[in-house]
Amino acid sequence: MLAVHLESGRVELRRAALPRVPEHFARIRLIAAGICSTDLELQRGYYGFRGTPGHEFVGQVSEANDPAWIGRRVAGEINLACGKCDWCARGLGRHCPQRSVLGIVKHPGAFREFLTLPMRNLHRVPQSIPDEHAVFIEPVAAACEILDQVKIAKGERIGVLGDGKLGLLVAQVLHAHGANVNLFGRHRHKLAIADRAGISTETIGKMLPLREYPMVVDATGSPEGLRSAISMAIPRGIVIMKSTVHGLVPIDTAPAIVNEITLVGSRCGRFEPAIGLLASKKIRVDDLISETFPLDRAAEAFARAATKGILKVVLRPPAGSAR
Amino acid sequence: MLAVHLESGRVELRRAALPRVPEHFARIRLIAAGICSTDLELQRGYYGFRGTPGHEFVGQVSEANDPAWIGRRVAGEINLACGKCDWCARGLGRHCPQRSVLGIVKHPGAFREFLTLPMRNLHRVPQSIPDEHAVFIEPVAAACEILDQVKIAKGERIGVLGDGKLGLLVAQVLHAHGANVNLFGRHRHKLAIADRAGISTETIGKMLPLREYPMVVDATGSPEGLRSAISMAIPRGIVIMKSTVHGLVPIDTAPAIVNEITLVGSRCGRFEPAIGLLASKKIRVDDLISETFPLDRAAEAFARAATKGILKVVLRPPAGSAR
Repeated sequence: MLAVHLESGRVELRRAALPRVPEHFARIRLIAAGICSTDLELQRGYYGFRGTPGHEFVGQVSEANDPAWIGRRVAGEINLACGKCDWCARGLGRHCPQRSVLGIVKHPGAFREFLTLPMRNLHRVPQSIPDEHAVFIEPVAAACEILDQVKIAKGERIGVLGDGKLGLLVAQVLHAHGANVNLFGRHRHKLAIADRAGISTETIGKMLPLREYPMVVDATGSPEGLRSAISMAIPRGIVIMKSTVHGLVPIDTAPAIVNEITLVGSRCGRFEPAIGLLASKKIRVDDLISETFPLDRAAEAFARAATKGILKVVLRPPAGSAR
Repeated sequence: MLAVHLESGRVELRRAALPRVPEHFARIRLIAAGICSTDLELQRGYYGFRGTPGHEFVGQVSEANDPAWIGRRVAGEINLACGKCDWCARGLGRHCPQRSVLGIVKHPGAFREFLTLPMRNLHRVPQSIPDEHAVFIEPVAAACEILDQVKIAKGERIGVLGDGKLGLLVAQVLHAHGANVNLFGRHRHKLAIADRAGISTETIGKMLPLREYPMVVDATGSPEGLRSAISMAIPRGIVIMKSTVHGLVPIDTAPAIVNEITLVGSRCGRFEPAIGLLASKKIRVDDLISETFPLDRAAEAFARAATKGILKVVLRPPAGSAR
């Protein structure tokens, strides 16, 4: 089968053997996968990654101990937890210290024709979610994680900083939840996507509003984002740190302390609410897909995904490729 | 009267007129005041401060519209709020955007023979708290603020980083609350103070514990403190940012996000619980007083307070000075 291999910043195609299927695992034939900003960070050297990346996918189960899964169209949670520790017992396998992470830490990812995951990580994708939307289940779940971490009242004013893929999904998830969202970004054509979803947007000029929002989400992916978010929050406000930045981020802690801001780190989320939102079309993702590439043009797809102004790039196995 | 004047890093003594007493204010004759790390930061140029610093004090009311206050021994909350805005209405005058702050922002501080504060800022100091302990009401209140911001169960494991004045008070307050506190510091003689209060302590070596505490308080006052605190917290743990650092602090946001740490900025607190703890002797502060200087030797006192290994330096008006 074909598999993408990432090493020292280079994206290559390799022929690989079909992956083994350990007990309680399933083998999944890839239908489509999305390139995430984290994949681009892996390419830049984040985590010293070497191997097959990819963690946003939809596929069809081709082999599994439990015959009920065979043939099912699935998405999969990306953290492979031990299932035995206290974290796992509390339903927080996403924080299991023994975990590997699909396409990120010690488990080859989804940018290959067949991948494997434990069956307990799988979620059936309902008919109403087309393949290219299903690729967004994982990032929408990450956006939904905010709702699991902090209480957000209907009508609460939330500033979302950043009009990239993550910012657009976060803004839509919070808007669908009933919050009064204001999305701040630099790109008219990206903000227009949020506009069409009924979200109020603002192009970032020289000044950002100061001490105005009870909650601000930093989804900029830039080192300045967090500082701006802190200054936009009212005293005792909450800043959600949604985008990882490689390396050290200089923040001015004094205003965070003087104004008693709470900063909440936020990562992966449960898939159930994300599947619900995508199935009910409460989140618009069509506009977020910039381009689709066949898997064997992954290098080109990565370059495209890293291009300014581009949103989601989707990979699909080349037509007719079998094993 | 004598007043300390701080400007461009220099601590001088000046003769000043008795301060006016606006309506609803009281004039307070200083009994004793403490030099706080914030005062040393003001000296270093934090906030572009120029004027009389000092915000930890105990004094005796010498003039007030309300005769019930006259002659009372008092401590005073440091934020002078407008009393009219939404923040004030919610009992959060500490965050009133119009506020001035005693000895820090637009209101001359306590390092003078007479100071003024609104009567509503005053708290009677009970007999059972001697003068030099009363100087600690403000910093103990700041430590107590943590209990108002986050829920702490009895027996909860908390790591406190930093064995300075603030760290020693925070550790004692959390210990008195029933938490299982571990104080980390670099100075044996300072840690010994916590030991005597029944708190377990550890000298910081090359390594700090990793991912071990559900809650960590950074009271180091150093730029590295926050990074260490983040790495000591378990996933989904809480880090309290208790010490301000002047300038930008480089933090590695990736572990905070991956482990979904919550960082809570924490500043001033209510005086009531602090007075209660000091009155009941649940907090030991005698050991925290390094030296006492007369007010007219303030420059020397500041230099002493900035000396490594020194804890609280107390100022007292020179004996026999009247106006």
